Amino acid sequence: MSQSVNKVVLAYSGGLDTSIIAKWLSETYGCEVVTFTADIGQGEEVEPARAKAKAMGIKEIYIEDLREEFVRDYVFPMFRANAIYEGEYLLGTSIARPLIAKRLIEIANETGADAVSHGATGKGNDQVRFELGAYALKPGVQVIAPWREWDLNSRESLMKYAEEHNIPVDYQKAKTKSPYSMDANLLHISYEGGILEDPWAEAEDDMWRWSVSPEDAPDVATYITLTYEKGDPVALDGERLSPAAMLETLNKIGGDNGIGRLDIVENRYVGMKSRGCYETPGGTIMMKGHRGIESLTLDREVGHLKDALMPKYTEMIYNGYWWSPEREMMQAMIDASQTHVNGDVRMKLYKGSVSVVGRKSEKDSLFDEKIATFEDDEGSYNQADAEGFIKLNALRLRIGAGRKG
Amino acid sequence: MSQSVNKVVLAYSGGLDTSIIAKWLSETYGCEVVTFTADIGQGEEVEPARAKAKAMGIKEIYIEDLREEFVRDYVFPMFRANAIYEGEYLLGTSIARPLIAKRLIEIANETGADAVSHGATGKGNDQVRFELGAYALKPGVQVIAPWREWDLNSRESLMKYAEEHNIPVDYQKAKTKSPYSMDANLLHISYEGGILEDPWAEAEDDMWRWSVSPEDAPDVATYITLTYEKGDPVALDGERLSPAAMLETLNKIGGDNGIGRLDIVENRYVGMKSRGCYETPGGTIMMKGHRGIESLTLDREVGHLKDALMPKYTEMIYNGYWWSPEREMMQAMIDASQTHVNGDVRMKLYKGSVSVVGRKSEKDSLFDEKIATFEDDEGSYNQADAEGFIKLNALRLRIGAGRKG
Amino acid sequence: MSQSVNKVVLAYSGGLDTSIIAKWLSETYGCEVVTFTADIGQGEEVEPARAKAKAMGIKEIYIEDLREEFVRDYVFPMFRANAIYEGEYLLGTSIARPLIAKRLIEIANETGADAVSHGATGKGNDQVRFELGAYALKPGVQVIAPWREWDLNSRESLMKYAEEHNIPVDYQKAKTKSPYSMDANLLHISYEGGILEDPWAEAEDDMWRWSVSPEDAPDVATYITLTYEKGDPVALDGERLSPAAMLETLNKIGGDNGIGRLDIVENRYVGMKSRGCYETPGGTIMMKGHRGIESLTLDREVGHLKDALMPKYTEMIYNGYWWSPEREMMQAMIDASQTHVNGDVRMKLYKGSVSVVGRKSEKDSLFDEKIATFEDDEGSYNQADAEGFIKLNALRLRIGAGRKG
Amino acid sequence: MSQSVNKVVLAYSGGLDTSIIAKWLSETYGCEVVTFTADIGQGEEVEPARAKAKAMGIKEIYIEDLREEFVRDYVFPMFRANAIYEGEYLLGTSIARPLIAKRLIEIANETGADAVSHGATGKGNDQVRFELGAYALKPGVQVIAPWREWDLNSRESLMKYAEEHNIPVDYQKAKTKSPYSMDANLLHISYEGGILEDPWAEAEDDMWRWSVSPEDAPDVATYITLTYEKGDPVALDGERLSPAAMLETLNKIGGDNGIGRLDIVENRYVGMKSRGCYETPGGTIMMKGHRGIESLTLDREVGHLKDALMPKYTEMIYNGYWWSPEREMMQAMIDASQTHVNGDVRMKLYKGSVSVVGRKSEKDSLFDEKIATFEDDEGSYNQADAEGFIKLNALRLRIGAGRKG
Repeated sequence: MSQSVNKVVLAYSGGLDTSIIAKWLSETYGCEVVTFTADIGQGEEVEPARAKAKAMGIKEIYIEDLREEFVRDYVFPMFRANAIYEGEYLLGTSIARPLIAKRLIEIANETGADAVSHGATGKGNDQVRFELGAYALKPGVQVIAPWREWDLNSRESLMKYAEEHNIPVDYQKAKTKSPYSMDANLLHISYEGGILEDPWAEAEDDMWRWSVSPEDAPDVATYITLTYEKGDPVALDGERLSPAAMLETLNKIGGDNGIGRLDIVENRYVGMKSRGCYETPGGTIMMKGHRGIESLTLDREVGHLKDALMPKYTEMIYNGYWWSPEREMMQAMIDASQTHVNGDVRMKLYKGSVSVVGRKSEKDSLFDEKIATFEDDEGSYNQADAEGFIKLNALRLRIGAGRKG
Repeated sequence: MSQSVNKVVLAYSGGLDTSIIAKWLSETYGCEVVTFTADIGQGEEVEPARAKAKAMGIKEIYIEDLREEFVRDYVFPMFRANAIYEGEYLLGTSIARPLIAKRLIEIANETGADAVSHGATGKGNDQVRFELGAYALKPGVQVIAPWREWDLNSRESLMKYAEEHNIPVDYQKAKTKSPYSMDANLLHISYEGGILEDPWAEAEDDMWRWSVSPEDAPDVATYITLTYEKGDPVALDGERLSPAAMLETLNKIGGDNGIGRLDIVENRYVGMKSRGCYETPGGTIMMKGHRGIESLTLDREVGHLKDALMPKYTEMIYNGYWWSPEREMMQAMIDASQTHVNGDVRMKLYKGSVSVVGRKSEKDSLFDEKIATFEDDEGSYNQADAEGFIKLNALRLRIGAGRKG
Repeated sequence: MSQSVNKVVLAYSGGLDTSIIAKWLSETYGCEVVTFTADIGQGEEVEPARAKAKAMGIKEIYIEDLREEFVRDYVFPMFRANAIYEGEYLLGTSIARPLIAKRLIEIANETGADAVSHGATGKGNDQVRFELGAYALKPGVQVIAPWREWDLNSRESLMKYAEEHNIPVDYQKAKTKSPYSMDANLLHISYEGGILEDPWAEAEDDMWRWSVSPEDAPDVATYITLTYEKGDPVALDGERLSPAAMLETLNKIGGDNGIGRLDIVENRYVGMKSRGCYETPGGTIMMKGHRGIESLTLDREVGHLKDALMPKYTEMIYNGYWWSPEREMMQAMIDASQTHVNGDVRMKLYKGSVSVVGRKSEKDSLFDEKIATFEDDEGSYNQADAEGFIKLNALRLRIGAGRKG
Repeated sequence: MSQSVNKVVLAYSGGLDTSIIAKWLSETYGCEVVTFTADIGQGEEVEPARAKAKAMGIKEIYIEDLREEFVRDYVFPMFRANAIYEGEYLLGTSIARPLIAKRLIEIANETGADAVSHGATGKGNDQVRFELGAYALKPGVQVIAPWREWDLNSRESLMKYAEEHNIPVDYQKAKTKSPYSMDANLLHISYEGGILEDPWAEAEDDMWRWSVSPEDAPDVATYITLTYEKGDPVALDGERLSPAAMLETLNKIGGDNGIGRLDIVENRYVGMKSRGCYETPGGTIMMKGHRGIESLTLDREVGHLKDALMPKYTEMIYNGYWWSPEREMMQAMIDASQTHVNGDVRMKLYKGSVSVVGRKSEKDSLFDEKIATFEDDEGSYNQADAEGFIKLNALRLRIGAGRKG
């Protein structure tokens, strides 16, 4: 709390915590507060936030549906890279933050605010993602992270603050509150805390919200066909869908089939390990599908280069560097690789697993049946060439072996 | 067929093709033939090969059970690296070749042979893997690859050759021959050819041999606990198992639960794409388990470095460079990373999918509940530090953004 | 020599060897020969090649000045990546081949030729570079590499062939022929063979052709200022120069100051080590200058990413994969990184060494004196932030150290 | 200054600043101060620090000659990796910090101290290097960085503090103080500040202390031969030298020939760019020599892998992660690569430049004259193999090109 602040744009969910933050900001900094509430597919109505904000005296209230932008400009570009963090995690939380950061800064510029604020704690990755984005887009902005500043660090002190400042608390909801800390957007829902803090304890089955248990999924497999254009899924079973509609539909189908549950221990950018559970039904399907169409249409060395760089790209997004020149530079390369990633992938979904069972591409397939098979030798591939290929590749090994002898 | 050959060691399966090769070698090169038949878990008896070889007049016959060596010295080291080729393939065929190449050369040295031979075709990766290994271990060796040399390139001409040379043909077996080209060892079984040559066609359910269909797997999940020591699985549900016994048992459990089927289009080292189906039940479980125990015990940067280098390491194995100084160099690094990879992973197997549900490590866990959770702040982690962390990480982004303005 | 050929485009230098090749092609394949001779700055007149070709009865003769295209579209893009092979080599030979390959194919398409040919031997990298380029640009083309086919493998047999076929031999020139195998273009001249075949033997001083010995260079340093735009040098001491004029001028200045000599043992793509000496006066200056302007204008992480990928990019060019999708994909990334690489670099050239002594960029400098220096603390950088930065970066190390104890 | 401190080990140079820190620590924290002064080749006597420390009432005084350990265990391992930061910097400052950090912690353990302290500022990299090392080796240690805490941030306030606390100030020395901030050890001396803060300004010639100007170096070249064993230089012109003696001698020879001056703008880990000048005469020779002997004895793919990973390894050292599991893991790989890096390199030193003119290795050379040259074809290399090599490498390019058509 080093400098004076005139106006601050707050990433406002409409819930208790960010309502308290709104009040606390105006009290502590004596500044005007602008609220920004976005629908990025978290599954809760955003419109009620307007009334709540008004009730607290907020004058500038932004409520926006960003679902299409989220999927089109953030989720899809990331999936072009086959981004998986630490072998498992599909970055569902990470990828939503840059969009929020961008809108916070744009609204700050529109409203003449000199600060932005968010409700992320001081122990997580999200503070880093929000703030790196904010600084990258508006280098002189002030960032207020109440959880790192205030002394309201227990549930009790928060409740007391709410009461004292006439912030309405839904006690019923508070009582039945999930024991898990959750976060959701169109790509995923995450769970932390509660019994998950013991990494040996299995997650309880009633924790999961977006998918049925594989045991409860249909006994008959579901088959779908995804059509890709330039690396993005554009049609499902032949029907074109907008990016958000695509992801919503795949979430539904995937969730119905028990697909996309994940339980991992991951390494946070701020230095510690944490255990999280995730449901990413549509994303899990999209990842498999993208790999499937790439396997048919991507040159080998392009694919291997993408694989080699994927961890670096993924780290950038996980750590909050979406709005960095290095991410933009890598994106240019990744996007350049997707020109020919066009075609159809057929997938089987069944009780928790998704597998590719067929792939085709009329104009962009690099699969040549005649070359690959064992029967045919029309001259496109001369088996004798293999000898020279092996001999020259072996030359340095032979020279090296000679040395050892 | 450039040079004269005195004696050749042949990788001999006991089947028709390599029997023909044995005869062809002795006819074509006028050389003595030594046969080498190894049990690496392909699921067929190897002892019958002795009688067949004898019947063809072979004097030096090697028949060996290499299953423990295969898993301990090849499969396990590879799994320490989480090696996956092109995002999907667990390298089941690739990893068996270096062991065969090594034994071929050792037997050549023991028997005074100046050449080795194998039954791999001129269109696949296996010729490369055999031969690079051979040259690396005995730089002056001659390699004879009959499929690249002879004119017996149809089933008919092979049969005719067999008849003319009194090589017994099991016509019953030949008639009921699988339409697929298959290869098996303790890590996997592979299928190519037949209807798989159309990458859009779904594999027929009766093709798969090692696993039940997920639909036919038990309706109740199976839970297992794997104990890891230095990155290798050493006990299952508390019972210590030798490397080969571990993989065999996991193959059984995995296969029973419909786990480990894979259907991909992959890029061969010799330049074309091919479509293959694989069953790797035990390997699929081991991969998941290893990731699970690493997630708890591996330092973040060590893990990320491993992830970044995995594609390169994997490529080495896929392309046949096991016996290369660069693979050995990377292995030194990978093995050095596994000192602390000790502990237990609990997994759920259910109708085709395997998921980690718990992991623990008494001495080597890097998970610290107190640091990761939201409740506690005993000084081990000071939330205020995050501000400085973010500010300095943002500095270059802010300077860069200033430039754009 | 597998298929019939109707017309072949030959990369023709006008010298004896490629004249013999021209004749040999027409005799051996009974095909028409088109000659293509390009000035890429090798320092020899190309026009005389016309008369020689005519004298041999060639009907379609292409003679072209490609110097500007060579530097603008090949040398400059490569220098944007700071490409250095094996820590030393500036890829002078490698980068010229893709342009020749491209023109060979374009001419084949124009003249209806179905084959191309070149005079590179079967032991070097150049055959690979020519042929990979040719196949990538015209997949069905035939490539004829006489040195791999014919039996004219001694100087004597070549001379005899020339005599028998009335190909004029300049015996005077042949006698005084350099003992070195040389290759030159605007970027460099190379030397191989002769006493260089002993890697312990120092190159003789009279071997070098483009630069004076450092001992013979002026006793007073030369200062120059290079102006960069988007990573390319566009002006020297304030005077704008075309790409080729820039490189020619820098070659002159560098050569006069004894700059750019190199003596290395390198690893060829075809598997062996070879010893080569190179003179790259202008390139050596350009490399240093580019690093200098990047040091001021490139974001840290962008620069580090470029450094990490440089060896891969370099390998692509050295191995002959300029015309590959992976090189194009990386180029997209490299080019995207150069938007802000604008400004001036001042360099000192003196008796064999070139050093950067100053760099500035009006609009694109990321150097901020106030932040970097020790005197000032106006709030742009708060020293206290460093504590949090270090503490969080140390967290995983501390947890890990706790484990060891 | 969060916790109480009983005893602190201070990295003490004997100079004014760290003398003030010693006093300030005891005053501010009321704790005992242990001083640690090391000779790492900075070129100043360390023994006088004893009297100074005693005069301030220090009871536990450590003074040590660490030169051999520094070169043997830090400099040499780093040079095995050919570590160069941002294309230019040989990490002279970076590599000295881990050793100091290690000794600080070891002395803390011996003396029962609970804290360590250093004189690095809050804007530089050295604070990070000291502190990451300290935390990695003793996770519970307290680190006191006075420059980040106190208000003595001007020369005047420091002088005033010294006077008030009877710390002797050598006013004569203070007056003639260099305008540059300098740091030295056996590997290099560095200069920052003063006119260097303008990156366009050329460094003044009288700034440099370790090397003569190239203009003033001898007019006749100096030739030396370095003998390498497992990647380390062990003898100079046939005379075996200890690690420190080797580096000292090469510094002398290099400095006499004007070698090793560097003027760069570099990216600090804490986020800003800074301009620094360095003299690394011996290191510059060692780098060139190591590349030279590796070029003859290292397998191609091993060398390329080292080149690809070098930037990552270098970043670890520059950023202060010497004492991290990822650095140790990479070191295992780098050291494993050096087994065969044995032999002699002959170098020419002349007026600022160093070049390799010859290299040989009796047992470990991979250079095979017969294979590399153009004259001989004894079967070790069959030119015809190149066709198959190229054809298979081209296959994917041809298939890809077919698609485009």
